[in-house]
Amino acid sequence: MSKGFAVPLDVPKSEQDTYIRNLKTITHDSGRLMLFAGDQKIEHLNDDFYGEGIHPDDHDPEHLFRIAAKAKIGCFATQLGLIAKYGADYPKIPYLIKINSKTHLVPTAQHEPFSNLINTIDQVVAFRKCSKLNILGIGYTIYLGSEYESAMLSAAAQAIFEAHQNGLVTVLWIYPRGKAVGNEKDPHLIAGAAGVAACLGSDFVKVNPPKGEGASSAELIREATLAAGRTKVVCAGGSSVDAATFLTQLWEQIHVGGCSGNATGRNIHQKPLDEAVRMCNAIYAITVDGASVEDAIKIYHG
Amino acid sequence: MSKGFAVPLDVPKSEQDTYIRNLKTITHDSGRLMLFAGDQKIEHLNDDFYGEGIHPDDHDPEHLFRIAAKAKIGCFATQLGLIAKYGADYPKIPYLIKINSKTHLVPTAQHEPFSNLINTIDQVVAFRKCSKLNILGIGYTIYLGSEYESAMLSAAAQAIFEAHQNGLVTVLWIYPRGKAVGNEKDPHLIAGAAGVAACLGSDFVKVNPPKGEGASSAELIREATLAAGRTKVVCAGGSSVDAATFLTQLWEQIHVGGCSGNATGRNIHQKPLDEAVRMCNAIYAITVDGASVEDAIKIYHG
Amino acid sequence: MSKGFAVPLDVPKSEQDTYIRNLKTITHDSGRLMLFAGDQKIEHLNDDFYGEGIHPDDHDPEHLFRIAAKAKIGCFATQLGLIAKYGADYPKIPYLIKINSKTHLVPTAQHEPFSNLINTIDQVVAFRKCSKLNILGIGYTIYLGSEYESAMLSAAAQAIFEAHQNGLVTVLWIYPRGKAVGNEKDPHLIAGAAGVAACLGSDFVKVNPPKGEGASSAELIREATLAAGRTKVVCAGGSSVDAATFLTQLWEQIHVGGCSGNATGRNIHQKPLDEAVRMCNAIYAITVDGASVEDAIKIYHG
Amino acid sequence: MSKGFAVPLDVPKSEQDTYIRNLKTITHDSGRLMLFAGDQKIEHLNDDFYGEGIHPDDHDPEHLFRIAAKAKIGCFATQLGLIAKYGADYPKIPYLIKINSKTHLVPTAQHEPFSNLINTIDQVVAFRKCSKLNILGIGYTIYLGSEYESAMLSAAAQAIFEAHQNGLVTVLWIYPRGKAVGNEKDPHLIAGAAGVAACLGSDFVKVNPPKGEGASSAELIREATLAAGRTKVVCAGGSSVDAATFLTQLWEQIHVGGCSGNATGRNIHQKPLDEAVRMCNAIYAITVDGASVEDAIKIYHG
Amino acid sequence: MSKGFAVPLDVPKSEQDTYIRNLKTITHDSGRLMLFAGDQKIEHLNDDFYGEGIHPDDHDPEHLFRIAAKAKIGCFATQLGLIAKYGADYPKIPYLIKINSKTHLVPTAQHEPFSNLINTIDQVVAFRKCSKLNILGIGYTIYLGSEYESAMLSAAAQAIFEAHQNGLVTVLWIYPRGKAVGNEKDPHLIAGAAGVAACLGSDFVKVNPPKGEGASSAELIREATLAAGRTKVVCAGGSSVDAATFLTQLWEQIHVGGCSGNATGRNIHQKPLDEAVRMCNAIYAITVDGASVEDAIKIYHG
Repeated sequence: MSKGFAVPLDVPKSEQDTYIRNLKTITHDSGRLMLFAGDQKIEHLNDDFYGEGIHPDDHDPEHLFRIAAKAKIGCFATQLGLIAKYGADYPKIPYLIKINSKTHLVPTAQHEPFSNLINTIDQVVAFRKCSKLNILGIGYTIYLGSEYESAMLSAAAQAIFEAHQNGLVTVLWIYPRGKAVGNEKDPHLIAGAAGVAACLGSDFVKVNPPKGEGASSAELIREATLAAGRTKVVCAGGSSVDAATFLTQLWEQIHVGGCSGNATGRNIHQKPLDEAVRMCNAIYAITVDGASVEDAIKIYHG
Repeated sequence: MSKGFAVPLDVPKSEQDTYIRNLKTITHDSGRLMLFAGDQKIEHLNDDFYGEGIHPDDHDPEHLFRIAAKAKIGCFATQLGLIAKYGADYPKIPYLIKINSKTHLVPTAQHEPFSNLINTIDQVVAFRKCSKLNILGIGYTIYLGSEYESAMLSAAAQAIFEAHQNGLVTVLWIYPRGKAVGNEKDPHLIAGAAGVAACLGSDFVKVNPPKGEGASSAELIREATLAAGRTKVVCAGGSSVDAATFLTQLWEQIHVGGCSGNATGRNIHQKPLDEAVRMCNAIYAITVDGASVEDAIKIYHG
Repeated sequence: MSKGFAVPLDVPKSEQDTYIRNLKTITHDSGRLMLFAGDQKIEHLNDDFYGEGIHPDDHDPEHLFRIAAKAKIGCFATQLGLIAKYGADYPKIPYLIKINSKTHLVPTAQHEPFSNLINTIDQVVAFRKCSKLNILGIGYTIYLGSEYESAMLSAAAQAIFEAHQNGLVTVLWIYPRGKAVGNEKDPHLIAGAAGVAACLGSDFVKVNPPKGEGASSAELIREATLAAGRTKVVCAGGSSVDAATFLTQLWEQIHVGGCSGNATGRNIHQKPLDEAVRMCNAIYAITVDGASVEDAIKIYHG
Repeated sequence: MSKGFAVPLDVPKSEQDTYIRNLKTITHDSGRLMLFAGDQKIEHLNDDFYGEGIHPDDHDPEHLFRIAAKAKIGCFATQLGLIAKYGADYPKIPYLIKINSKTHLVPTAQHEPFSNLINTIDQVVAFRKCSKLNILGIGYTIYLGSEYESAMLSAAAQAIFEAHQNGLVTVLWIYPRGKAVGNEKDPHLIAGAAGVAACLGSDFVKVNPPKGEGASSAELIREATLAAGRTKVVCAGGSSVDAATFLTQLWEQIHVGGCSGNATGRNIHQKPLDEAVRMCNAIYAITVDGASVEDAIKIYHG
Repeated sequence: MSKGFAVPLDVPKSEQDTYIRNLKTITHDSGRLMLFAGDQKIEHLNDDFYGEGIHPDDHDPEHLFRIAAKAKIGCFATQLGLIAKYGADYPKIPYLIKINSKTHLVPTAQHEPFSNLINTIDQVVAFRKCSKLNILGIGYTIYLGSEYESAMLSAAAQAIFEAHQNGLVTVLWIYPRGKAVGNEKDPHLIAGAAGVAACLGSDFVKVNPPKGEGASSAELIREATLAAGRTKVVCAGGSSVDAATFLTQLWEQIHVGGCSGNATGRNIHQKPLDEAVRMCNAIYAITVDGASVEDAIKIYHG
C-alpha cells in the first residue's frame, strides 16, 4: 500500500488494486499530495486568468494543461468538460475531476453559498472508461455553515462512497462560509472542518490556512491535522506572490503544521509557462521529495 | 429472541436471523443498550474534542475507536466515512452507522434545523458487505417541531423500514427544536417525541432528559417510556462531568424512569483512554449487567 | 361486489378479487365504514394519550391494539411502524396504514401545513407481504388551501392510483387549512373538499363536521355527501365527550347527512379498555348494523 | 390522417395508428374540437356545482358523465380518479385526462399559482390499458408568468412528449397569471401563450378570450390563432349564461378568429340534464358540423 | 475531423462518427457556425413575431421553417415540440434542439432568472430516432449570477456530457443576469462566461456582444474568445436592424474578435421570406465562406 495510507473499507475488493495504484500515483508514494488546482475558471470566472499581474500565457485555458504536462505534480484538478476538450493532447497528466463548482458572482449576503454537483460519479467513471485518461480521483467543495450545508454534506458523503466504490481517491475542499460564520480563518473552526472531512471518509481535505493571535499559521493548523486523523490535510500557501515566502509557508505547513501537501492554483498558473513549471517543481520538491526551502527556491530560480 | 424484544414485522423472514443476532449483540441479550456516541465531529465540530477540560487523547479521532475496542459497549455510533478509515484496524467493534448529520454552525434563529441523510441504507448495506465489519444498526436524528420536520419524519420512516428489511437495528435521536418549540426539555413534549419513534417503528429512541418542577428527571421521563411502548428509550445522563452524579442519574433513568439504556459521548471520550474505558465499563455495568451505582463507581475508579 | 360499491377501473383485473375482499372486510359488506383512528401519536404527540381526563390505559400504545382486537371495527388506522411492532400479537385486526403524518408543533401562522409521505405504497405492499397481516387499505391527509396543497394533491392522487393497482382501499382525510382558509368548518368548503376526493378517485373521504347558521351539522353535510358522488364520506362526531350526544350526532350524520360512516379516535381510546370496546361497538352498531341511537347507547352502557 | 392535422414526429411509428384514431375520434374528423370541460371540482371546489343559478342535477358528479354520454362531444375532460369511479357505467364516452389541477383557495397575491402533476403519463397509459376506456388524450394547465412557470413549462413539455410517444392527443390550458401579469386578457399576451403551446408541440391549446379596445374578442384572437401555427386554438365563450350570446361568440371565434373549437364547462353542466345535452349539441353543431348560429340555437331549444 | 475541432473525450468511440458528421454538417467544415435562432416564441412570447416593424410573414411559425429550408445556415435552433409539428415537411433542415426555455414575463427584480430543462437528452435522442430528422445538437441557456445558477450549471454540465455520449454537438447560451450582476455587457464578465462554457466542455458558447469604454465590441470580445479556449464563441450582431451595420459587426466579431460564428434570430425572421433568406445567406457568406462585408451586402441585396 501507498506510504501513510490504508485502503478504506468502502473500497470493494475488486477495486482495491485500482485505488492503491491511484493513491500511489497521486502521492508518488510519498504520503503527500501536490495538487495543482485549475478549477478557477468557474469559481472566479476570468479574474484569475486575465488582468494586471497575470501573464498573457494564462489567457488560454491550455496553459493549465501545458503546465500540468511539463511540471512535476501529484494531480491536476479541474472540471470534466475542460479535460474532455484537451485530454487527448495531454494523455499523461494525472487528473482529478472537480465535480461541483459555482461562480463568485452572487455574494454571501444575498444568497448563502451552494456549490452544486455538476457531474455525477457515474459520469466520472464513464468518462474514465471512454477517455482512457488517468482519472485518479474526484474533488468536492463544501461551504460549512451555509444554509445549504445539508445539501453539500449529503452530496459529499455520497460522492466519496461512490468514488471509493470505484477505486477513486477523494479530496474535499471545505471552507466555512455564510452568515453564520464569523471568522472563516478561525483555527478551531478550520480544525472542525478537517474533522468533518474525516467523518465523511475523504482521503484528503483542503482547508485554508488559519489565522490567529500569538501563533503562526503553521502552528495553528496543527489542531486541524490532528482532528483530521487519517484524512490528510492539504493547504494553500495563502495569497502571497513572493515565491520564497510561499515556499517557506508551505514547508512550515508540512513540517510544523503536520500537513500532507498543498493545493495551489493562482501562484502557479498566473506565471509564464516556464516559470510556472519551475514553481510547480519547487512545490513538488518540498511536498513530495522532502526538500528544504533553500533547495526549492533554487529549483524555482532554475 | 433477544430479551424484551420481538422481531418487528417489517423484517422479512430471510433477515430475521440477522436481525435477532444484531439485537442480541447490541444489547448483550439484556434488553438494554449501552450506546457509545461518537458522531460529534460533525455535530459539534472540534468543540467536543479540543479545548479546556478535554484530554489530548481526544484530539485524535482514533481515540474513539481505541475506547470502543477496549471497553464494554453495546455499540459505537458514528459516521460511515470514519468507520471506513479505521475499521480495518478495529474489526471487532460493534458498529452503528449514523446516517444523517449537521453542524451546529447555523443557529436555529437563522434557519430551522435540518439534518440531511448523508448515507442511504443501500450504501450501509453495501458497506456492511464489502467491509465485513459488524454493522449492527443505523441511527437517524429528527428535529421535531422544525419547519423541516416533514422531510426528517419521511426520511426516518423510510430508513427504518429499509433497515429492518435488511436486518439492521434502528435508533432514532429525537430532539424538539425550532422556533415553534418553547421548551425543549418539557417532559410532555419529550414523551411525544418518544411516541413518534414508536409510530415510526424504531427499535430505540434517544431523547434528552426532561426537566420540570416538583419531580426528578428520572420520574419525569416515565411518561416518555410509557408513550414509547415497545420502542425502547435511551437517554443521556446530562452534561454533568462528575462521574458519580452521572452514574446515579443513569441508574435512576433505568430503574425509576423505565429507560432501557443510555447514549453517551462526551462524558466518555473527553477523558484519557484508560479512564474513558473505565467510564464505559461503569456505564455498561449499570445498563447491561444491572449493577448498583456503588459497584459502577468502583469500576470507574478501577 | 360489496354493497354500495363498484370496483374502480384503476384496479387491474388481477387485483379485483383482493380489492373486493378488502372492501367487504372493511365495510362488513354494509356499504359503511367504522374507522378507528389511531394515528394521533404523531399528529398530536402525547396530548391525546396522557393528561387530565385520559384514562391511564391510554398511556401505553398497546391500548389501541387491545381495543382494535376486542371491539367491532371496520379498520384500525395507524402508522406502519407501530403496526410492525405490535402486529404479530394482533394478527386479526383489519389494518389501514396512514402513509403521511405531521406533528402539530409548527403553527399554521409560522409555516403552512404540509404532511409528508412517510411510507410509500411500495413499502405498504412489501409490508403486507412480509407481515402477512390484514392490510386492507391506506390513508392520506390533504390540507386543502395550504401553500403545499400542490404537493399533497399530487402525492394523494398517486397513492390512490398505486393503492388501487395493488387492490388496496383508500381513505383521504381532507382538512381545509392555511392562511388562505377563513373558516375551516364552512359547509360549502367542506363539500368542495369532498368533491376533490371524488376527483382523486378515493373510496372514502374523512371530513370534519361543518358548522353554519340555521341548520344542523348533519343537514349541512348533505352538500358534501352529494358532491362526493361515489366517494363515501365519513365524519367524526366532533369533540363531545358525552357518549349519547356523540352517538346521536353520528346517527344524524348517516341518516340525515348521507354519510357512510365515521372515523373516531379520541372518543374511543381515551377511555379504559372495557369502556372503549363498548364505545366502539356502539358506534359500529349505528354505522354498520343500522342500529338506533337508543340501541347503541344500550350497547355502550353494556 | 384526420382533417387539418399531420402526425407529429414525436409519435413513434408503432403508435401512429392509435394517434390518428384518437385524433379522428376527438375531432370527428372535422379538424375541430368540442371539449366538454369537467375538471372544476378541484379547480373551483363546489362553487360551480352548488348554489344559486345551478340546477340540482349538477350537485352529483355523475351529472357530468350523464351529459357526456348522451350529448355530442369531442371529449370529456376530467381527472383520472373520477373516471375510475364512473367509467365502468359510461364506457363509450371519449375521455381526456386532466393530469394537473389546483384549487382556487390560495390567492395569487399570497402565493404564485402552481398546478402540480397529479397523474403521470405512465399512469394514464396503465389506466388506459386496465380500464379499457377510450382514453384519447391528456390535458395540462400552465400559468404563464407565475414564478412557478419553469416547473410547469417543463412538466408540460415532458407530458406532451410522453403522451405522443403513447399515441395520445394533447391539450394545453394556458393562462397568464401571477404578480408579473398585468392584464390576463391582453390579446398580445394570449397570442404569446398560444405560441408557447406551439413550441411545446401540443395538438391543442385552450386560451381565454382576449379583450381589448376597438375590436371584438373574436377579431383579437386572430393574433393567437396565427401565432399557434399548427397547434389548434380552442376557446371558451366567456362567462355569459345567455345561450344565444354564447353560441354567437363561439361561431365568431371560429369563423372570425380562426379558432378550432371550444372548451366549455359551466355553461353546460350547470343546466339540467336535458338542457345541458341540448347545449352540448348546439355547441357541437357549430364546432364540428359547421352549423350557423341560428341552427345551433334551434338545436339548443330542442 | 472537422476543421478547427477535435473530438471531445466524452464522446464514446461508438458515437465518434456521428459526432464528427454532426460537427461537419453544422459548420460546413469551416470551423464556424451560422446558427439561426428560432426559440423566441417562448423566450419573448409574441413580441418578436407580431407588431410594428415585423413583416406579416413572421406571424406564422412556419416562416421560421421556410427560411431554414431555403437559406444557407449551419443549424436552426428551436424547441423539440415545434420541430415535431413541422419537421415532416422540412426534413432536410439541420436542427439543433433548445432544451431549456423561459418567458420574459417575470422580471429579474421579482424573481431571479431560471430557465428549466423542458426536454431531456434521452427525449432528444428518442426523438432523433423516431423522427429520422437531422438532429445535430442541443442548446442550453445559463443565467450566470442568478440565484438559480447552481441548478443551471448542473443541468448544463449533465446535458453536455449526455449529448456528447450520444454524438450530439452542444451550444451554450450564457448570459450574466440577476440582482448580483451589475453590468451584463461587461467584457471581463462575458469572458468569464465563455470560460465557464469551456469548463463545462461545450463545443460552442453564445454570448452577447460586450460594451466598454475606448474599444469596439469586437476588440473587447477578444478576451472572451481567448478565455473560451477550444470552445468556440458565437455572438449576435446586436439589435441593429440596418443590415450593413449588422454584417460589418459580424465580420469584425470574427476577424477582430476571434469569434467562430453567430447566432441570429430577429434580424432574420422579422423580414419577409425572400429578404430573410438573403439575410441568412449574407451572414452565412461571412461566417462560413469567409466573404467580405461588401460581398455579403451584395448577397443581401440579391
